[in-house]
Parts: sequence; structure tokens; C-alpha cells
Amino acid sequence: MADTTSHTVPVDPTAWSCPVPLRDHPVVVTGHGGGGALSAELTEHLFLPAYGNTVLAAMADSATVTLGGARLAFSTDSYVVRPLFFPGGSIGDLAVNGTVNDLAMSGARPAFLSCGFILEEGVELSVVRRVAEAVGTAAAAAGVQVVTGDTKVVEAGHGDGVYLNTSGIGLVPEGVAPCPQRAVPGDVVIVSGPVGAHGIAIMSVREGLEFGADVVSDTAPLGGLVEAMLAVAPDLHALRDPTRGGLATSLHEIATASGTGVEIVERDVPVPDAVSAACGFLGLDPLYVANEGRLVAFVPRDRADAVLAAMRAYPHGSGAAVIGECVADHPGLVVARTSLGGTRVVDLPLGEQLPRIC
Amino acid sequence: MADTTSHTVPVDPTAWSCPVPLRDHPVVVTGHGGGGALSAELTEHLFLPAYGNTVLAAMADSATVTLGGARLAFSTDSYVVRPLFFPGGSIGDLAVNGTVNDLAMSGARPAFLSCGFILEEGVELSVVRRVAEAVGTAAAAAGVQVVTGDTKVVEAGHGDGVYLNTSGIGLVPEGVAPCPQRAVPGDVVIVSGPVGAHGIAIMSVREGLEFGADVVSDTAPLGGLVEAMLAVAPDLHALRDPTRGGLATSLHEIATASGTGVEIVERDVPVPDAVSAACGFLGLDPLYVANEGRLVAFVPRDRADAVLAAMRAYPHGSGAAVIGECVADHPGLVVARTSLGGTRVVDLPLGEQLPRIC
Repeated sequence: MADTTSHTVPVDPTAWSCPVPLRDHPVVVTGHGGGGALSAELTEHLFLPAYGNTVLAAMADSATVTLGGARLAFSTDSYVVRPLFFPGGSIGDLAVNGTVNDLAMSGARPAFLSCGFILEEGVELSVVRRVAEAVGTAAAAAGVQVVTGDTKVVEAGHGDGVYLNTSGIGLVPEGVAPCPQRAVPGDVVIVSGPVGAHGIAIMSVREGLEFGADVVSDTAPLGGLVEAMLAVAPDLHALRDPTRGGLATSLHEIATASGTGVEIVERDVPVPDAVSAACGFLGLDPLYVANEGRLVAFVPRDRADAVLAAMRAYPHGSGAAVIGECVADHPGLVVARTSLGGTRVVDLPLGEQLPRIC
Repeated sequence: MADTTSHTVPVDPTAWSCPVPLRDHPVVVTGHGGGGALSAELTEHLFLPAYGNTVLAAMADSATVTLGGARLAFSTDSYVVRPLFFPGGSIGDLAVNGTVNDLAMSGARPAFLSCGFILEEGVELSVVRRVAEAVGTAAAAAGVQVVTGDTKVVEAGHGDGVYLNTSGIGLVPEGVAPCPQRAVPGDVVIVSGPVGAHGIAIMSVREGLEFGADVVSDTAPLGGLVEAMLAVAPDLHALRDPTRGGLATSLHEIATASGTGVEIVERDVPVPDAVSAACGFLGLDPLYVANEGRLVAFVPRDRADAVLAAMRAYPHGSGAAVIGECVADHPGLVVARTSLGGTRVVDLPLGEQLPRIC
């Protein structure tokens, strides 16, 4: 009844290979939710064998499936960010934009969202209302509708106010099939704007980490930006929104999935001054800091100028920049050329630097 | 780009009317997640105004939308059941069957699921693996694929081992449009089997409520059963799976949404002996106890015999029984004829009798 064509290129479940086996952790640690190596191990060694299907094995930000003749992207994310409200947004904004962006990274036009609340007994209804209103406002801004929902309540001491889950579906136009496996040597690597603001905004207000930097989250819906990019380059090879684990993790995932080498030039990666300052203060690398309104694109070289121009003409892409390219050398590895003229391998982090960033 | 036709009959958002305004609770109480009057108030007075769309306002178990020419059902549920493993199933079974059943109640053939885990730091990985394997096994049994997922981790003391969210999509055949608003006087009310087992199974193992009754959860996927029913009656008027709040809540929701009166005969409602005994012991009414593998159907009178026969020929419908009918009297109210010959109004419960039943 429903056939599944995950991508126009065949996906080999073994092509995405986790560097190491599931570590001998007897219990869940925070890093398992950090989007880095520990998360990848959990997916590869626990969830994939348990579910056993090749669509999930494609390891894209969303699944691409065919149903009733329609090519659909389908994605889910839970949100446990702390605090619920932070400079530049709230858990409600993240829940809408995060899932909208996962759909957009499959080339889809996001259309419909679900929204599930897990509430902790005792949280103020006014807080729930503010979150729901943020969801509604963000959905309207992203051009999607929240069409189905659910509410569960857990006892005090078994939650943290509000956890959200959003899932989403969108339509993938014919001929469009960006996926991590499709990056090839020669592709130009473009980011849509300065990186690191979301993670630093969360850290700036997290208890014990206040440092007064004036950084607001970059949370934004990227469906329109992707549509503008696809209008000039329908055959974009790969798209990813660098959330948990930051830009480094997205680049690493695409390099690993495609088996191509990725080379970036550190000084070409746009980083806001305040983020640089905060990273210096906290001893962090901006390449590993979470974003919630940025994407990285792997673009065929002959379309790179057109894509860059289309991005810069769009509000959420005005700061777009070329940061590197795919190379035939060091297949599957990401290498950064440093400001000092050296090179370093950009590896997958073990987990997120700060838990519960989204 | 995407048009939304929630149902073939127009849905008036004001037609589903909550009996009372949002109560003056300053904070969330467990009843807000119980699927009864408090949940309904939250949906009507908080979520609907925040999201502002008519698909959600249809208040069906899943939304029906059109995307790329395909008529799709889309549904979501979070699962916070305690304990994670119980007689007859686990949180993984519930998460698959619950969402599969919500899709089926829209007449859809369930096809694809998402699965998001919210893990508590310190939970054993072997527990996570058992849950994931239950998800995989239940998905295979239900004929659906888990194609996308997500994992978040919260600190110890902010979760309860494992919370799950599943969302799902399915294809709704042309001409099929069951929804709560469509029940009319003359419809025959059929349940697919004995009620109350799931809730009693959970209660039987919940700390402090052990009473030794040998009851296992009825958790089961109902997609195939619905397909068999639709094969003989494509124009089924309404379907609902009576989970939180039990059969009484489902009947009440359909009566309210359609504005028709519903009359059931108490002694015709099948209740397993062990459930009856446990309900007597605990002082509960089986009509209000949760099920996870049952449905109630509102069937045009001339198709009732055919539907009943089709149900009884199907494993999950072998205990199907006619329990009542829709009447022109007492519009919007559910009335039960008691064994003593009297009648009583079956009202919406305030919340679930026991929290975290699913």
C-alpha cells in the first residue's frame, strides 16, 4: 500500500558507519542526547537494529517516503531546552523551527506539524499558555499549521515544566533529493550565516554560566530560504542544519555518509564577535556550538554563485558565506585550514558541550 | 501549496463545545493529562486559540489533511506510562499501537511512524534497548515502519526512565471519512471487544495498588480491523479508540461533537470477569477505564450486521458487540440503561482515575 523510496540515490545502510561500537556504558549519560558520537552510537547500534529499515538508516534530518503518490518528508524532534524562555526565543519557537528546518533539509516545503506537550504537575498554566502561543506564532511565521496534538502530565519531580515534541510533514518537489550521501569532490560548502549564537544565548542565561554577553538565539524557520536555493539549483547535493554538535558535527556527518573529504577554511566561517568573545571566555570552539536557524549546503560548483546570491537575497541567508569545498583527499574526514596556515582534523564531538540546548 | 480538507463534511470549530470554561487552576494538575473534562478544557481554551486552525478544531483522534494530492491522516501521542513494562505489553507497544490506532480511527491505513525518546540520565541502556525492540516488534506487527527518530537526555530527577513520542502518517482511502461530527440518530454503536483490561493491568502492578487480578493489557494495532470494517461499510460514520477516560469519554465526545443522543445498554457492554472483579474491588466503573486495543464504531443501521460480522471474523474484533444506538432524544448526551431498568447520564470524567496510564 505504501512504498518507500527514501531517496533517488540508493541508500546503503552500511555506508553510514559509526566510527566506534556502542561504548560499554551500562546507563544513559547526558552525552547520549548531545547529537555527537554517543548519540550516533545509540542510533547505529541500538535503534537501527531494533527498527530494522533502510529509510531510517539514511540518517538524514528527516525521512523521505512516498505515500498515495506524494513524495513526503517526515521528521520528529523532542525539545527539553532549559530554560524555557531565553534571549531570542523559547522552547515553542525551537519546537516549530527545529522540525520545519529538518523537513527543509530534505528539500521539502514544510506543511503540517503535530505538537505534543509533556507537562510537569505544578507548572503554571500561564507558562503553558505562553509556550503554546509561541508555537502558534512561530508556525504562522513558518507558513505551517499545527493540526494535531496531545497533552500528558507527569508528577512533580518527573519532568521540568514543559517538554515538547513536534513532528512534521512536507512535500518534496520532483527532482529534489538532497541527502548526506550525495556530497562529491568539487562541491562548494556554504553556510547561511554566522554560527554559534543559539548555544551561546542558552549558556548566557543558564544558571551558573551567566557572563553578560549580548547574544540572542538565531532560531528561525528555513523553509523559504531552501525554496529560494532550490529555485536556482534543484539538484543541491546535501543540506543540514547544524543544531546540537554545531557546524562541525554536520560537516562530519556529511563527510562520513558520502565518503568524501571536506576542507574548510577557519577564517571564512562567519562567527559573531559576541559569540567569539563568549567562546574565548568559556573555552569553547564555535564550530561545535549549536545553531537553530542556520544551514550548511553542499552545492555543485557550477551552481555555487547562483545559490550564494539567492541566499544573500533572503532574510535568513543574508550572511551566507562559502567556507570550503569537498576534496578527493582524506575521504570521509573534515579538515580545517587554520588561521596560522596549519590544518587540523575536525572530529565528531562525544556529546554536546552543554546538555539540553534544544 | 498545501490545502487542508479536514473532512468531507464541513467542520464548524464551534460545534465541539466544551461544557465549561477553563477552570481557575493556576497550575497544571494531573487531570489535565487524563483525557477527560480538564484535558478538553485545555485543548479548547488554551491550545485552539494559540494555534488557530480548523483542522485541529475537528477534535478527531488524528488530523486529515491533503498534501501532494494524497489524503493523509497525521497523529501524535506522547507516552509516559508507569511502569514501563506491564502485563501484556510495554511503553513501546503502547507507543506504536496508540498512534497506529489514532490513524486508523480516521479510516487511514497506517504507514509510517516517527519515534522520539526522552531518556533520563542513569536509566540502564538495557532498558532502552528493550523498549526500542518492543517498538520495532510492534511496528512490524502493525505493518508500519519507524522511519525517523530523535533522542534527548534529561538530568536524573527530571524524567522517569523513558518517555516516548510517536507520530504517524497514513493514507485515507477516497470516500472514507469517519469523524465524531457525523454520528446521527439511528446509528448503531458497536464496541470491538471487552473493555477495561489495559487500565486494570496497569493498576494491578502500580505500587500500592497490587491486588493480584490476572488481567493483561489489551494493547493491539487496529489498522487491519478497521480495514475489514471499511471493506463492508466505507461510509462508517465515526470511529474512536477509547483510551484515557475509557468508553464513556469516547461516547461523550462523539455525542457532543455530533449533537446526537447516545443510548447504551449497560449489560450489553462486554467486560471481562477479572476486570469486573477488580473494578468492584477498587470502586471503579469499567466504562471509565482505559483501553489500548479497542474501538467503538458508529455505523449506519443498514450496515450494522455486515460490520459486526466482519469484526467478529477478525482476531482483534472477535468479541465485538452492539452496545447501543444514537437517538433523537437528549441531543449531545450519553445515557445508559442500567441492569435495574433505570437510566443514568454517562458524563465526561474530570480526569483519568489513575495518572500515567499510557
